[in-house]
Amino acid sequence: MSLDCVFCKIAKGELPSQKVYENEMVLAILDINPIAFGHTLVLPKSHAETFNDLRPDILGELVVRAQQVARAVVRATGAQGFNLLMNNGRCSGQAIDHAHWHVIPRKAEDGVKYNWAPRKYGEGELQKHADAIREALK
Amino acid sequence: MSLDCVFCKIAKGELPSQKVYENEMVLAILDINPIAFGHTLVLPKSHAETFNDLRPDILGELVVRAQQVARAVVRATGAQGFNLLMNNGRCSGQAIDHAHWHVIPRKAEDGVKYNWAPRKYGEGELQKHADAIREALK
Repeated sequence: MSLDCVFCKIAKGELPSQKVYENEMVLAILDINPIAFGHTLVLPKSHAETFNDLRPDILGELVVRAQQVARAVVRATGAQGFNLLMNNGRCSGQAIDHAHWHVIPRKAEDGVKYNWAPRKYGEGELQKHADAIREALK
Repeated sequence: MSLDCVFCKIAKGELPSQKVYENEMVLAILDINPIAFGHTLVLPKSHAETFNDLRPDILGELVVRAQQVARAVVRATGAQGFNLLMNNGRCSGQAIDHAHWHVIPRKAEDGVKYNWAPRKYGEGELQKHADAIREALK
């Protein structure tokens, strides 16, 4: 638990939230600043800063509940699809330093956009990046 | 397997890719149209259209390997953070109908943005959406 963490406080019931799912390990709440109505956050009750900090048992439970919640969000909102997003680190858009998945229900022409601007690898750069990641995986 | 699916063909070795990780169930490849250099895709070898279609055993294996790959991408690129994103459905930005996680390494001031424009729930609307999702979870 982190004393100043908003999501830890919500998990402990010290701050209000609209809970849509809860078990011993996982909590799902509505985002009060939704990108789309029905935008839901799925998070572990125990504090972990990012995806990479999640313990294997919590990771496994969290992803199963995220799927259960995503199916419910799609049904409840009549969405045609959804984004499942976890931002990790302030530079990535993470606003609260307690790992959480965004389930964002989507419809065609809903006005939600990201600036998906692909870059181009220069000569040999794709191979170089692949090698570096393979090396880091060893 | 889906006969016309690009990722099924890559998984079978019928199309080229820069593989950075592979086991019996999971494949990780560099995105050839990267949002940031080192942008990696983590996907099941067996065909499933979206996150919500993933079988529990595949889901569990996929998320563990996504974490392993995300840690390596961060190390290899020197990223300060990353986005972990799965688009589900054409309306959400999914371009290939075979579920895949994007691991997008991020740095401060890297110019990657999404238009994160929160909406406001009207009176009673937050409660109404929470009720609908809770109902769908039953």
